[in-house]
Amino acid sequence: MAAADRSLLETFENPHPGRDYIIETVCPEFTSLCPKTGQPDFGTLTITYTPGPRCFELKSLKLYLQQYRDLGAFYEDVTNRILDDLVAVTAPRHMKVEAAFTPRGGIRTTVIAESRGG
Amino acid sequence: MAAADRSLLETFENPHPGRDYIIETVCPEFTSLCPKTGQPDFGTLTITYTPGPRCFELKSLKLYLQQYRDLGAFYEDVTNRILDDLVAVTAPRHMKVEAAFTPRGGIRTTVIAESRGG
Amino acid sequence: MAAADRSLLETFENPHPGRDYIIETVCPEFTSLCPKTGQPDFGTLTITYTPGPRCFELKSLKLYLQQYRDLGAFYEDVTNRILDDLVAVTAPRHMKVEAAFTPRGGIRTTVIAESRGG
Amino acid sequence: MAAADRSLLETFENPHPGRDYIIETVCPEFTSLCPKTGQPDFGTLTITYTPGPRCFELKSLKLYLQQYRDLGAFYEDVTNRILDDLVAVTAPRHMKVEAAFTPRGGIRTTVIAESRGG
Amino acid sequence: MAAADRSLLETFENPHPGRDYIIETVCPEFTSLCPKTGQPDFGTLTITYTPGPRCFELKSLKLYLQQYRDLGAFYEDVTNRILDDLVAVTAPRHMKVEAAFTPRGGIRTTVIAESRGG
Amino acid sequence: MAAADRSLLETFENPHPGRDYIIETVCPEFTSLCPKTGQPDFGTLTITYTPGPRCFELKSLKLYLQQYRDLGAFYEDVTNRILDDLVAVTAPRHMKVEAAFTPRGGIRTTVIAESRGG
Amino acid sequence: MAAADRSLLETFENPHPGRDYIIETVCPEFTSLCPKTGQPDFGTLTITYTPGPRCFELKSLKLYLQQYRDLGAFYEDVTNRILDDLVAVTAPRHMKVEAAFTPRGGIRTTVIAESRGG
Amino acid sequence: MAAADRSLLETFENPHPGRDYIIETVCPEFTSLCPKTGQPDFGTLTITYTPGPRCFELKSLKLYLQQYRDLGAFYEDVTNRILDDLVAVTAPRHMKVEAAFTPRGGIRTTVIAESRGG
Amino acid sequence: MAAADRSLLETFENPHPGRDYIIETVCPEFTSLCPKTGQPDFGTLTITYTPGPRCFELKSLKLYLQQYRDLGAFYEDVTNRILDDLVAVTAPRHMKVEAAFTPRGGIRTTVIAESRGG
Amino acid sequence: MAAADRSLLETFENPHPGRDYIIETVCPEFTSLCPKTGQPDFGTLTITYTPGPRCFELKSLKLYLQQYRDLGAFYEDVTNRILDDLVAVTAPRHMKVEAAFTPRGGIRTTVIAESRGG
Repeated sequence: MAAADRSLLETFENPHPGRDYIIETVCPEFTSLCPKTGQPDFGTLTITYTPGPRCFELKSLKLYLQQYRDLGAFYEDVTNRILDDLVAVTAPRHMKVEAAFTPRGGIRTTVIAESRGG
Repeated sequence: MAAADRSLLETFENPHPGRDYIIETVCPEFTSLCPKTGQPDFGTLTITYTPGPRCFELKSLKLYLQQYRDLGAFYEDVTNRILDDLVAVTAPRHMKVEAAFTPRGGIRTTVIAESRGG
Repeated sequence: MAAADRSLLETFENPHPGRDYIIETVCPEFTSLCPKTGQPDFGTLTITYTPGPRCFELKSLKLYLQQYRDLGAFYEDVTNRILDDLVAVTAPRHMKVEAAFTPRGGIRTTVIAESRGG
Repeated sequence: MAAADRSLLETFENPHPGRDYIIETVCPEFTSLCPKTGQPDFGTLTITYTPGPRCFELKSLKLYLQQYRDLGAFYEDVTNRILDDLVAVTAPRHMKVEAAFTPRGGIRTTVIAESRGG
Repeated sequence: MAAADRSLLETFENPHPGRDYIIETVCPEFTSLCPKTGQPDFGTLTITYTPGPRCFELKSLKLYLQQYRDLGAFYEDVTNRILDDLVAVTAPRHMKVEAAFTPRGGIRTTVIAESRGG
Repeated sequence: MAAADRSLLETFENPHPGRDYIIETVCPEFTSLCPKTGQPDFGTLTITYTPGPRCFELKSLKLYLQQYRDLGAFYEDVTNRILDDLVAVTAPRHMKVEAAFTPRGGIRTTVIAESRGG
Repeated sequence: MAAADRSLLETFENPHPGRDYIIETVCPEFTSLCPKTGQPDFGTLTITYTPGPRCFELKSLKLYLQQYRDLGAFYEDVTNRILDDLVAVTAPRHMKVEAAFTPRGGIRTTVIAESRGG
Repeated sequence: MAAADRSLLETFENPHPGRDYIIETVCPEFTSLCPKTGQPDFGTLTITYTPGPRCFELKSLKLYLQQYRDLGAFYEDVTNRILDDLVAVTAPRHMKVEAAFTPRGGIRTTVIAESRGG
Repeated sequence: MAAADRSLLETFENPHPGRDYIIETVCPEFTSLCPKTGQPDFGTLTITYTPGPRCFELKSLKLYLQQYRDLGAFYEDVTNRILDDLVAVTAPRHMKVEAAFTPRGGIRTTVIAESRGG
Repeated sequence: MAAADRSLLETFENPHPGRDYIIETVCPEFTSLCPKTGQPDFGTLTITYTPGPRCFELKSLKLYLQQYRDLGAFYEDVTNRILDDLVAVTAPRHMKVEAAFTPRGGIRTTVIAESRGG
């Protein structure tokens, strides 16, 4: 699969680094292409993290995710890759990405991946 | 009970074997036959697993499950057999199969079976 | 499409023919085959009628509908044919059949057909 | 079917006979016996009426309905008979009885009967 | 039943008398006493009206309704009396009072009364 | 009450004037001030209209409604005034404004006003 | 309280004794009699267990529970007795019985009892 | 705050003292008076406990709670006092009282207090 | 706005032209581009029609709608154009297109257009 | 960001300091301004705490939160600041602030911060 460009993700300094707190961001408008058929897939991404030094900026997250609109991506792969990209730019203490896709052929799939900060 | 053919299940290599992550697949269109009466039963299967070396492919899962359309199967048995088949072909780190059947005689039953990888 | 056998439908005499009243029967466990792909379709049938001389018997309705388990049937066609069969055996003052099918390819369809007694 | 005793229904004088108004009473704890199998049936009765000279008293309605606990009764018949009994003792300007039964064999049925006052 | 004092209801001039419009007010915290047993009853009042010359003021409505906290009141009677009092002080073009009481003895009742302005 | 400035509302030409169609716009983030207490009120506005020569532009609607953030406004008055302003700038064939406010003192109120084009 | 006859409960051999799995059975059509007043009570029983050597058969469970239709039974007592009877005939590794009764006098009660196998 | 009289609470002997089990009682019809304003407050009490030697009787609980209808009571205080009274008369192994009050001024509050038996 | 190509829409002969019946098709995965900002919009299309000589084929509908993935389209315009295209290829006795878009700036909009056959 | 004035928060002595209990307060009418665009943001605050020596008073909480109506505030920052202010005036044993904001650009965010008493 072609990779999304993680450099579109902008970050800002965690305004309260002295405290472990949680940010949950829900993106119900995720869409990508099925690499086998070229048909669009749709899903809801839920990103939950405890920020480390930096937080991701919401508008840049939106632009980053819009890249998948024209990319072929398997469910398992795209979830793990989004997690990898977000971890790379924010170095969170903990982050979880949950991707719930709409049904295909009467079957629906959710993929959940987590990263615990080093 | 006659056995479903597990060789219909196709798998692919886990694209992110270095990370424990979760795949949840919901199949609300499961149907089998009651071995006593021959009448159809209906239910929703939810398969949740942390993949090991291989993941199951969704279209082949659908074809595998369609075999039960013409098979007699007790609730407890069919749930454990599906778990056995999926474990055999994917060797997951953990897998849970939950089968929620529609009511019969005013009573509804759900069977939940789990396998922890060796 | 091969026809279901309407002779499986048993009826009984309307016990209150002097009054217009309504019987609504919901069958959430309808399944047939797609005539193009041979894949199973699933749906919920809702039959609403004001009985004339006869009512249909519920167990025979169930057996009649189970014939579709192995029949290829387009959505529009199966809804109208079930209505035709039920009207033929009960001669209702009014009858409506609503068939709500589960999503395929991200699209779901409901067909609604009505008959007003002669 | 053995008849319930309508003399258990007590009534009181409509306190506002000069105005057409509506009383809706919902009884989710109705149970009777299937005349074929002797097995219990369960359902929710909704009685809606515009009172004429008299209203039915709620506690006596409860006792009247409890008679069905030991009576065999087909869905269509029991709904019409309850309507007949309630109309006989209250002479309403309009009354509707809706009986929604729980599923049997994957099929659920609702019967709705109405009476317009003479 | 002892009467509530309608003089507690304050009104204000309809600010848009040239247009028929609708005001719906929902009061889920209504409570009165059962005249037979002295036990509290609870319910939700929904008052819907097209104002004529005057509208009722919400705080005074609250105080008016709080009088029922210590009054014995049958369901049918209290609904019609509240309608009578509100019509008397506002002379609406149309008003409906719907009183939905919580279950007693497994049975719940709603009373709906309407007034069309003269 | 001080008036909102309707000149903030921008419009565009109805792109399909030859057909009666409906546009429904829901604004769940409406807030104004209570003219008596100065405390904030909150509500959801639903504007439904069949456009005539012009449609209102959504971003300008948002800015127009934000004026109420600092304006004292009674429920009945604000609903009718918003309707008046929107009718003035778009001349719709039909328009309805429904304003559902959050509870105050255990009571919640909805105001619905309609205009039929001349 | 008169005892239900546990000998009506039929069992079958656990088809997968080598694995701890869970069977959840929901019976929303439970009814018994209040020992004080003789009035019917209604509730939903949820039985969850990890089978040991034997599983209970669903049709016999239904007939066993129908005995309570004519038995006086306090909430706390009936829940514990059903648990005792089911444990006696199946010797489960773990079993929980949850009985949720419908409201009486504005109050509703749920009783939950568990048994851990010896 | 004036105290409710706990002597109204009647108890009965725990019928199954040999087993730890749970009784949950939900009372959605709780009402008291605000000590500051004298205005009524409304809420739902949920009492969950593992009985020790004695259980509380439901009808007496209802009468005990009705005392608050005419008592001024702060949220935090009333929740803790009800817990104290119920613990005093039943000596439970564990008890939790959760009181969820309806909104006031756009804010709603729930108080949860627990007691672990000595 | 650039036009979608209606020639992608395939149709089939109405199998029951002698009866007026209704087909409702729901497409929750519609996406287009905002012509002002180029940002993606998302919505649910509901197409309801009484077929005339021809019905549209579902897979071709899906491919037709996927054209909007890369087209700029105002809400009002796209709804009316889809209606025009579907009417052109099926000549229905009646057709309604309802397009419910997800919120932008805290405001969400639905457009509903209808065509009555000539 | 300009700071809200925490001196508006009034407190009262914890009436039951001998017991760890929980107070949950939900404020669905929170609004602030986006520091970038000046546009209003909306959200629901849920404050959950185990009080130490003092509890916050609800009316003063409301006035404190209303200050944000005219303050620019980033999501992450405002949540942590409200937590800091509430901890400063009440010294709770534990406190959690959860702020769930409405969607912007198809994305919605919740921030959750906790403080454990020293």
